[in-house]
Formats: sequence, C-alpha cells, structure tokens
Amino acid sequence: MPELYDELNKLAEGNMYPFHMPGHKRNSKSTQLQGAFRCDITEIDGFDNLHDEKGIILRAEQRAARIYGSDETHFLVNGSTAGVLSSVSALADEGDTVLAARGSHRSLYHAAYLRNCSLNYLPIKIDRKYGIPQGYNSDAVENALDQMKIAPKAVFITSPTYEGLCSDVEGISKLCHKRGIPLIVDAAHGAHFGTGSDMPKGAVEAGADVVIHSVHKTLPSMTQTALLHINGSLVDREKIRRFTRIYQSSSPSYVLMASIDLCMEELEKRRDEFVSDMVRYRKMLSEASAKWRYISIPEISKIPDPAKALIYVEADKMTGQELYDILRDKYDLQLEMAGERYALAIITGWDKEEGIIRLIDALGKIDTGIADRENSFTGDGTCFNSLMKYEGSEVQSDTFAIPKTICSIKKAWDSDREYVLLDDAKGRVAGEFINLYPPGIPLIVPGELINRDIIEKVNMYLNLGMNVQGVTDVGSSENNGIIRTDRRRIVCVRQK
Amino acid sequence: MPELYDELNKLAEGNMYPFHMPGHKRNSKSTQLQGAFRCDITEIDGFDNLHDEKGIILRAEQRAARIYGSDETHFLVNGSTAGVLSSVSALADEGDTVLAARGSHRSLYHAAYLRNCSLNYLPIKIDRKYGIPQGYNSDAVENALDQMKIAPKAVFITSPTYEGLCSDVEGISKLCHKRGIPLIVDAAHGAHFGTGSDMPKGAVEAGADVVIHSVHKTLPSMTQTALLHINGSLVDREKIRRFTRIYQSSSPSYVLMASIDLCMEELEKRRDEFVSDMVRYRKMLSEASAKWRYISIPEISKIPDPAKALIYVEADKMTGQELYDILRDKYDLQLEMAGERYALAIITGWDKEEGIIRLIDALGKIDTGIADRENSFTGDGTCFNSLMKYEGSEVQSDTFAIPKTICSIKKAWDSDREYVLLDDAKGRVAGEFINLYPPGIPLIVPGELINRDIIEKVNMYLNLGMNVQGVTDVGSSENNGIIRTDRRRIVCVRQK
Repeated sequence: MPELYDELNKLAEGNMYPFHMPGHKRNSKSTQLQGAFRCDITEIDGFDNLHDEKGIILRAEQRAARIYGSDETHFLVNGSTAGVLSSVSALADEGDTVLAARGSHRSLYHAAYLRNCSLNYLPIKIDRKYGIPQGYNSDAVENALDQMKIAPKAVFITSPTYEGLCSDVEGISKLCHKRGIPLIVDAAHGAHFGTGSDMPKGAVEAGADVVIHSVHKTLPSMTQTALLHINGSLVDREKIRRFTRIYQSSSPSYVLMASIDLCMEELEKRRDEFVSDMVRYRKMLSEASAKWRYISIPEISKIPDPAKALIYVEADKMTGQELYDILRDKYDLQLEMAGERYALAIITGWDKEEGIIRLIDALGKIDTGIADRENSFTGDGTCFNSLMKYEGSEVQSDTFAIPKTICSIKKAWDSDREYVLLDDAKGRVAGEFINLYPPGIPLIVPGELINRDIIEKVNMYLNLGMNVQGVTDVGSSENNGIIRTDRRRIVCVRQK
Repeated sequence: MPELYDELNKLAEGNMYPFHMPGHKRNSKSTQLQGAFRCDITEIDGFDNLHDEKGIILRAEQRAARIYGSDETHFLVNGSTAGVLSSVSALADEGDTVLAARGSHRSLYHAAYLRNCSLNYLPIKIDRKYGIPQGYNSDAVENALDQMKIAPKAVFITSPTYEGLCSDVEGISKLCHKRGIPLIVDAAHGAHFGTGSDMPKGAVEAGADVVIHSVHKTLPSMTQTALLHINGSLVDREKIRRFTRIYQSSSPSYVLMASIDLCMEELEKRRDEFVSDMVRYRKMLSEASAKWRYISIPEISKIPDPAKALIYVEADKMTGQELYDILRDKYDLQLEMAGERYALAIITGWDKEEGIIRLIDALGKIDTGIADRENSFTGDGTCFNSLMKYEGSEVQSDTFAIPKTICSIKKAWDSDREYVLLDDAKGRVAGEFINLYPPGIPLIVPGELINRDIIEKVNMYLNLGMNVQGVTDVGSSENNGIIRTDRRRIVCVRQK
C-alpha cells in the first residue's frame, strides 16, 4: 500500500479521536462514501501540508517524479486546470505573449485573462477524415515563432488531444530550447504516455519544461486530480509553486491526494499489466471493426493514443450522436462523447475484457442493422453535412481563419458589454467566447473583431444544428435547439 | 437519500459500463476508497455539469439555497478559497480598493494580487485574554469607511473567526448597503450558523451580499467543499459565476459534490438533533472545566461559536502546544491547533458523546497534574511571555501597526526580488508576506515599507520562539527553529 493511503487507513482503523476538522468526524452513513469519509482529514500531525510539503506528501510527489523522470512533481487537487493556470501565470504577465494552439483548454484562455497577457495562435489544422484537431510538428511552431516580432514567454501545446492525436513534443521542445523559450505541454490526456515500451513517449521524457497530467482521465486516480511536472532551468519554479498555492484550496482533500498516491502505486507495481491490457483492448476493437461494413475504429497507427477508441461511422449512415445514444440506451454502454461522425470510447488498463466484448458485440449488431435502416433513416440529416464542410472548400486548407485581435481578453471581458444581434455585429469587438463543439475550438475570443466571414460561419454552424456556445436567443440567455437567424445575439463590448 | 448521491449510488449498482473517464472505470482495490471510486464519474448523461448546471446539480444547489435562505447558491469543489477568489475578483479590479480585516484568509490577498487591486485594512484588535483576533462592529467599519477618500468596491470580513469570535454582520451589512457597498462575509467557519434556534444568526440572514461557507469545517461534508451564496442586487452575479468557472477544475469531483448534497440532506432532516448535540457537547465541556483549577473552556457567552472549544491554560502553567501534545500523545485526542496558551477543539453535532467524555477525562487529569509539575516544569518558558505582550504595552491599544503601502501586492510580488538581512531592511519594500501564527495576521504584506518598528517586532517574535513565516536563515530557505539574529533574512523588492 502506498504510504499516504496506508497512513490514512491506519488512522481510520485507529483509536485517535478527531477534535479537528472536518466536521463529519470521519463518520458517514452513506454506504458508498463511508470509507472515503474515514480517510478524510485536515493537516494534522504526521500528514504534512500540500502547500508546504516536507514529509509524507513530499515523498509521494517524489515517487511520482521518479515514475515520470521529472525533476519536480506536484500533486494537484484542482485538476489540470490548476496546472495550466499556474504554469501560464508564472511565465507570462501583462504585455507578454504566449504562443498557443487555438484549441487549447479553456484554462489557457483563463490564465491569459487573469494575467492580462496576449495569445498568438498556431494555425488550426483539422484532420480531413475525422474532423478532429491535429497535432503540430516543429516546422509549424518554427513558422509561427518566425512570424512573431517579439519572442513569446512560452509555447503552449496540447498533446495528446482529446481525440488522441499527438504533436512532435521532442522536436518542438528542441526548437523552443534553442530559442530559450520554455515549452508547456498540456498532457492532461496523456498521463499513460511514457509508462511502458508499448506506449508513446511521454512529454517529460521528450523534454518539455512543464507537463500537466490529469491522472483521472486515463489512469486510475479520482476525478479532479492531476500532476504538475517542472523541468529544466528555463522556468521560475518558485513562481509556479506560488500559483499552485493561489489556485488551489487551502483545505486540499486527502482523499483526492491518496487516490493519486494509489494511482502511482499501480503504475509502479502493475505497469506492464496495465500497458498490455490497454493496448490489447484497443487492438481487439480495431481488429473486430475490420470485419464491419460501416463502422471502423482506427488503429494506433492512425490515432496513436491507445486510450482513445474513435468509433467512426461512414458518412450518411448514422451520426456520432445517434451511435452514442443507441450504445447507451440499448446496450448500457456509456461513451465519453459524440462527434459529428464518431463516438469516442476511453479505453484503459483498468477496463474489463467483458466490457470490451460487450462493446464489440453491440457495435457488430449496430453495423449489421445500419444496412436495414439505411433507407428508412429519417434523421434530419443536418449533422452529416456539417462535417462535409471540413472536406470541401468551406474551411479552406483545413484552417479556421482566426479573427484580428483588437484588445486583450481581459480588457474585453471586463468591459461594459451588451447583446448585439449576430447579423448586426460586423465591426464590433467580441465580449464573450463563441465556441464550436466538437472540435472545441473558439471561433471567437473576447477582444477579437467580428467580421462578415465569421458571422456567416456561425450562422452556418447554427443552421446545421451544431453545438455553438456563446450565441443565445433574443428572448433568453439559454441556447436550446436551433435559434431563428433573426433572433441570434452575441455579447459585444459596448460602444462608446 | 439526496438525489445526487442517490443517482450515483444507482449508477454504482447498475449495469451501465463506463467507456468514459475516469480511467479507473469505477474500480479500486483500496478497502477504504472503493465506494468513493464507484461514485466517481465525469459529466455523463443525466449528471449535469457544475459549470453550467441545469439539472441534478442545479436542484441540489437550489436545496442548499433554501436551507440558508439565499437567492442563489453554488457548490464549490475547490474550497472556500474558490469562493473568496471568485467574489473578490468579480467585485474589484485594477485601481479598485477592498476594505478588509488584516487577518483575512490568504485567498483575499491572492485575489488582490490576481486582480491588482488595493487593500485597505480595518484596525487589528486582539482579545486581551486569549490573544485571538476580535470581530468588528459597525462603528469600526464606519470609521474605516469614513477615512477612505474613495469608497471601496467591497467590504470583506471574516465571521466567525477561526477561534470562534463574531462580527456584527447585520449592523455592518446595513451600514454597507446604506452606502451602496457590497459586503462579502468569509463565513468559512460558520456554515452551522443560522441552522437552528440555538445557533447564532447566519450571515445570509444577516444581509451579507456574498457569503462563503466551508461545509467541511463544522458540517459533515468532505474536505475541500464549500458553498457560495449570492444575494441582493449590488453584485454582478454573472461575473462571480464566471470566476467560479475560472478558479475551479473543469473536471469537478462528483464525490465531493455528492458529499455536499449528503451534508445538505443532514441539515434538512437532522437539523434539530445536530444543533442540540453540538450545543450540549460544548456545554458539557464548559461545565466540566468550571471544576478545574488551571484549565478553562470559555462558555458560549464568551466565545459565541459553539463549534470552537478553546481550551485555555492559566498563564505560566502550560503552553497551548504542550497541552495539545499531551492530549495527542498520551490520550489519543487530536486537536485542531495550538495557540500560545490554548489548544482548540472543533466540536460538531457529529461528535460522539464518548469522545467528549474522553476529552473531559483527559483534561481533568491534566489539570490535576499541573499542580504537581508546576514547580518542576522546565519548558524554556518563551511562549508564555510572548502572549504577555498582548496584555502589556508591546501591542499598543490592542492594535498591530500596519506598515505604509508603497506599491500594490502584484507589483511587489512580481518584481525582481532579493534576500536582505532583516536588520538591514529598514526603508526597503517587502517582496514577500511575513506572517505570525497564531493569530495568523500578516505583519508585512508585499509592497509595504519596512520600518524600524516592524524589524524590532519580527526580531522579538522570533526571539520568543513564535511561528513567524517569511523569515529564513541566510544558509537555507527553510525556517526550522530559532534563527540567530544576524542570519535572519527576508525577501525585498530589488533596488534599482
């Protein structure tokens, strides 16, 4: 048993009476949570302090650092969100710029807002077939850096992506270091990378200065837990630590911390087993799908993250949402998300073979069924078409056009703002994000100039029934269903 | 069973297979945490989204709002820290000022740093007998407001305090509203207030605009959980909500949220029982202590928060730390903290009478023992004396002098900084906090001018062996034990 969990367990079973917080006094009548309540304590003697670790928590963090080969690792109880906020805040301040992928997690935008720094973006590339954001190679980053007049304070990329595509972290890292720029890798989805020979290389090993790992996404820690790895000498470590103390509760949960420690123990002791199971499950799925006619699950050669089984349906046969709904409603299989033409399943080494077989059986039946219903399908068909746009000329050269920045996110978001009809918004400065899900890339960021092109694009996505956040109905702040064109409004900076 | 927990429980017991995050797939081999893992999910269908709540989480929050009589209540999974950061960030920006108690939680200082706003302070008052920070009445706040040239964007007070003293929230609230200023009450320690006729009035009922409740401190929710209540029309609610989304993980823990919901259910269904138990336990302690010679536990008339049993030892007989250590080492009773002459026990309605009796028995024996060891006591005696200073002229009129502010916390904390010998620091601008624990009030805040008086005070506290954070040994960044006067260094803004 890992030390942190073990000590909590001993305390739970011991005679020490708690005249301290929490108020539940380690008792709960809840069937499921009573064990967790028994381990739920505050910073009492012998249990160290996450915000100034010197004992049992420091040792647990040092083990995590050894596992990933990192100089310094911190447990996070406020998710990868806290890791992104802390590292970006420590590296960039007012007047500074960060070069980032446009499809970065919202915490990157939030950090830019909080520190009032600027963002420059890497060009957006969408995979033609699946309609998912691609990773970057070092040439793309080099081109972007060459176009910047002043070097950014950091480069920020996400690898692997939510959908399992990777960037060349090693190449980008070398490039950045040659220019003295630190590289932050949001590897929230890649905590399993670098944990065994059948896994892709991890971002720490690939040379990134700061790496953020969610340990709940693909590893067996509890939701809201993460690791922050700090390496090399290009970053101010004490400043990053300061921000982890700022952005995280002064009463961090020992249950969450213990779950990270249990997870690290699994990695240390059962690494080979979990890696081989994970890869085997993913192969079972791809191999089974080779026999199907309409449904396919790309191999690791196409989507390199073994944790992401992208269940793709050939165009016009079924939408991703439909597939997701059938799997859930008819087969009791809850998937992670639905895209235009795919549904995404998270596969880990803690899955059960029986679960994988259930998924294969269900997909086989659905595939057989598609032929029968092909002619009778009466869906409104809107969703199929939308993705087609990525393949046609609608999104030129796979690139979303990024609007011109007029002012910082902070200035725009903190301004007096007002609702403006979308069709009347040309020439106005955006006061709110407008996001398209999937692929989860902002069409508009606060402070950007709204042009005719973007208005047409937002209208098109809405007409296609796609999930566009940041556009509401004139009559309500909710965005439920398709809003009539003349009722669509967005938030803009108020004009003087 | 509360709905949120109930649905998680059903899911845990059901047949739905998880092809989604978290990676543990709801399995854990840990004895204590397996139930928690079974309830640990991500935002799957039917489970709503904390950051855009419309279903089961919204309903759980609405119940919490009903219990406290609040217009709007939000569950927080990043502690009261997230509530303080969010509310202060939403109300004050660069150039704005917040009027706050100097002994406020560090998240108030962090919010001021993040938003680059200024802080003005209410005068510090320390209770003569116990050496703990006092609450405020409306006159104190009115005087402070009258001295400000420009009205602050918010008044921020903590009530009850860590040690159980209260402010006149109702009076202060009326005063603030007369001037159109919103009042934020950090009631992290007072989530049990206002829950029954034997409890002090709650801050929501007393009229505060924003109230932050830790539900783990004195109520039976898990550590790191809190509530944020928003009331009235003086605050921008959407902006506060924005910041709760910024400062909290985008993967909030359903286990933590379920524990808040279970806690609200306890309040709704067992309120009378827990209130009467809490008050009864506290009375048992005070009544027992009336028979002791050296140890006393002030009644509710003196320390009005029923959750705080302040176990006071008559001067020179024993230090608070000594009492705390004996209770822990000899009697297996873990207290919350030790002050100069007291140890603090947290008492809630979820304590067991058997625990209270164990504490009474132990304290009775210690009290009897003190007489015997009185003459043989060989402690270095430093701690007793330090508190004496509060009673003498060292801390004039119970007031800590607050140094002059030269620049904002942000400017100082983000500057180039350097170590300076404490004795040479006169005239320098502080680059780091210097805190004295207890009472947990900053002696110096970044951006403040270091004068001869404060250097003498810091030296005195260190000589007395008190816990001063922010002063390190010339040879190390650690502060272990008493540092020789000529080796004490602090962080200052680098001089040009």
